[in-house]
Amino acid sequence: MAPTPYKQLEQEWKRLHAFRGAMSLLRWDAAVMMPRGSASVRGEQLAALETEHHVLLTAPRITRLLDRAQAADAMLEDWQRANLREMRRQRDHAIATPISLISRLAKATSQAEVRWVAARDTGQFESFAPHLEEVVNLVRDKAQLLGQALNLAPYDALLDEFSPGITSTDIDGVFKGLTRRLPTLIRETIRQQEQRAPLPLTGRFTVGRQKALCVDVMTALGFPFDRGRLDESEHAFTEGVPGDVRITTRFDVNDPFSGLLGALHETGHAMYDLGLPAKFAEQPVGRDRGMALEESQSLLLEMIISRSRAFVEYLQPRVLKHFGVSGEEWSVDNLYAHLTRVKRSAIRVDADEITYPVHVLVRYELEKQLLAGELAVRDLPDAWNTMMAQRLGVRPTSDIEGCLQDVHWAVGSFGYFPSYAVGYVMAAQFYEALRQATPDLDDQLARGEFSGLFGWLQDNVYSWGASVTPHELLRNATGKPLGTAAAVRYLEGKYLDAPGTDSAAA
Amino acid sequence: MAPTPYKQLEQEWKRLHAFRGAMSLLRWDAAVMMPRGSASVRGEQLAALETEHHVLLTAPRITRLLDRAQAADAMLEDWQRANLREMRRQRDHAIATPISLISRLAKATSQAEVRWVAARDTGQFESFAPHLEEVVNLVRDKAQLLGQALNLAPYDALLDEFSPGITSTDIDGVFKGLTRRLPTLIRETIRQQEQRAPLPLTGRFTVGRQKALCVDVMTALGFPFDRGRLDESEHAFTEGVPGDVRITTRFDVNDPFSGLLGALHETGHAMYDLGLPAKFAEQPVGRDRGMALEESQSLLLEMIISRSRAFVEYLQPRVLKHFGVSGEEWSVDNLYAHLTRVKRSAIRVDADEITYPVHVLVRYELEKQLLAGELAVRDLPDAWNTMMAQRLGVRPTSDIEGCLQDVHWAVGSFGYFPSYAVGYVMAAQFYEALRQATPDLDDQLARGEFSGLFGWLQDNVYSWGASVTPHELLRNATGKPLGTAAAVRYLEGKYLDAPGTDSAAA
Repeated sequence: MAPTPYKQLEQEWKRLHAFRGAMSLLRWDAAVMMPRGSASVRGEQLAALETEHHVLLTAPRITRLLDRAQAADAMLEDWQRANLREMRRQRDHAIATPISLISRLAKATSQAEVRWVAARDTGQFESFAPHLEEVVNLVRDKAQLLGQALNLAPYDALLDEFSPGITSTDIDGVFKGLTRRLPTLIRETIRQQEQRAPLPLTGRFTVGRQKALCVDVMTALGFPFDRGRLDESEHAFTEGVPGDVRITTRFDVNDPFSGLLGALHETGHAMYDLGLPAKFAEQPVGRDRGMALEESQSLLLEMIISRSRAFVEYLQPRVLKHFGVSGEEWSVDNLYAHLTRVKRSAIRVDADEITYPVHVLVRYELEKQLLAGELAVRDLPDAWNTMMAQRLGVRPTSDIEGCLQDVHWAVGSFGYFPSYAVGYVMAAQFYEALRQATPDLDDQLARGEFSGLFGWLQDNVYSWGASVTPHELLRNATGKPLGTAAAVRYLEGKYLDAPGTDSAAA
Repeated sequence: MAPTPYKQLEQEWKRLHAFRGAMSLLRWDAAVMMPRGSASVRGEQLAALETEHHVLLTAPRITRLLDRAQAADAMLEDWQRANLREMRRQRDHAIATPISLISRLAKATSQAEVRWVAARDTGQFESFAPHLEEVVNLVRDKAQLLGQALNLAPYDALLDEFSPGITSTDIDGVFKGLTRRLPTLIRETIRQQEQRAPLPLTGRFTVGRQKALCVDVMTALGFPFDRGRLDESEHAFTEGVPGDVRITTRFDVNDPFSGLLGALHETGHAMYDLGLPAKFAEQPVGRDRGMALEESQSLLLEMIISRSRAFVEYLQPRVLKHFGVSGEEWSVDNLYAHLTRVKRSAIRVDADEITYPVHVLVRYELEKQLLAGELAVRDLPDAWNTMMAQRLGVRPTSDIEGCLQDVHWAVGSFGYFPSYAVGYVMAAQFYEALRQATPDLDDQLARGEFSGLFGWLQDNVYSWGASVTPHELLRNATGKPLGTAAAVRYLEGKYLDAPGTDSAAA
């Protein structure tokens, strides 16, 4: 008996999954291992695979099989039906973009990423600008076409690609809720913290020691080093597939924690990916439920768990051991004070918990302007610096600290940044529900027991794959719709000596 | 105006080239970077790309275009015509093997390679045997089908894939010529060398220092580190494409030279690949002219140049610097004596110039038996050890020193080993012609000037790409057909105090 249309589709997606894994590895290599002079060769390789992936995904045979499988979907189990829906979603997205555009985008972003790395070293935005401009133009074309096909505004079409089910309305609601409270919360927290500055952590923390600390902590969290790697790169990222997860971070020898926090952010992604339903590992329904949920997992680990007092109690003896340090400034109290220090600073990935969403808001507004053609690429540095000054009260002193700090736009990821904001409030919602379900969470974390944390996430987030919408997943896990209340409660409770004292002024 | 059929074919092969580059990177990563637990995921990725490459290469459209281009080939330039011939050759080879077999081979070899790495650590052949057996069975099927399609004996069909134009007759002629002279030459050289044993080179040579020495020498030779890398792996190899060449070697902290010689072997491959005609970089005619010629370039550098007295004069001060050593045992005389020391030893890649071909002969005979079904995989260790004792007078003490030492069979490269023997005699022929054309070669090498060497190779080998047969290339470069006379002359002249004294006994 011939395989059913649905089974044939599963075979097709198994192949697509292998292509995606190969492309992911080529990207990982480009960022971590590849000699700089090889960018154009790699660009051709990625473009060829990207193009072929697109051809396979948009083949008439796929459309026919999708229709036939749909007609017989009464025979399918729930997860298979959800898988079929995700297959069609992928195909609908792909077919909206012509192959020539796919190929040009793959080459342009591959080149732009290399130029971004160089510009980030030298601070010369001008050398990167023409490459970014090409990427912006191509993404704008893509957004237009995608929007037409999906009956969405162009920017919303890009959002839908990264975080299916998350709309501009959701994002605007999140920013509105945060913007109402954060400015005063930032001001009040900084005022309170000024009265008790932590002792400085000085010294030179070698990459070797920082990496050993990361490996130690990641191992305790459950990262499988027999099926994954930790490396260094210009920007922290997660690539690969659940059977071969590659995460990177970026070490600063003057800062004992930025490399670790980057690694923990990526470990949050990795743990999500590794916890996805293995039975559908090579199928669309077995993937993460979009980038907002991905970032909820990375930010939960990087921002909330890692900066909790209980985690610092677990971490502190390991810091002493790996850095070979001692003294009052390395006490749990002082480390906790460092990790929860609120500062108006220029760099997103080094931001504290409270100012973080402001960084994201700036990018969200600027990328919408760039795509709408309201802001020219050459004017980006000024616009960035001005908006950072307006929104956060800090003006970057160079483009390295300004619009060159993130790789996202270079690689064409417009519409990605809002995932951090939505993920941020989701993380707080998950954390609130997790704490209610696990009364002794702090004791567990302090002892280095992470099974309570990851067990809850496994049941409530990971195991759902892409079988439900992000909104459904969130409501199932927390009992509540997407909103900023939990984030505000969490931040106020953690950062203000007398919560709410400043809110009357808001 | 639509592109001509020939131009369309060039576009198709540009894409195939990008696929091959991607696959090469996946293999490099598997051997150098990949966590061990990720082998099956990588196997799926390689199988998917391999399969798609095969589909693209054997598409009916390609056959039609080839026919139409051929019909109009009067319009083409010589190199384009040669390119068309190579395109058809690739297509003819591909179409002989069904896609299911391609995919099964890709998966089986990917798994077998990982098992080989493990077995090479533990010495347990049994755990590797079933994987090797699967590979042997699949290669046997492939040889059968390929032979039928190309009207060749099965083994000759495999040969034709690695070294087009090199036949069993060529190989048997090479081994016959060498076997007539080598046994007595080995005996006589060892006898003479026994009277003047070099001072031992003791110490621990860290990987860091050995690698720095390799980078130093490779840079002087012209290896472009901005478009290539040197790494460590279980076995030395060259992967990548000319714009991103990845070579590896294997370091032994007790041996100051084995890592360097491995790196120089691969640098020989790399320099060939980098010197290929750039204009046809993504086309079949712009590739190397098969593995026998590839190995002629690697062995010329590893065996002949690197073990010349002139090169040792260049090398010696760099050895002193990188290893921080001094003393009589590090004199040019003593290092040269080490590098030209002839020994009946078990490991091919550590073999001296004279015994090297005997190692290859053993593999050639055994792989023919394996494929013919005359030797069972489970009996391979014994057969190997017995034949090594018979042919070279040394019996391996473990399978690590025996049939587990080379990766070739694990990855399905049956029919590859004879390339080393043919390449070996070609290298000696090139060297003889190079010396005649460059009377001051030794002075150049001693000064670290390698432009004379590589200039000659560029003109006489690299620049021809695959535009001529190996036999034509060899005759153009040396004025002589393939033969063992130059190799015998070279070895006798270098190794015997009074050349030919022992030959009367042969």
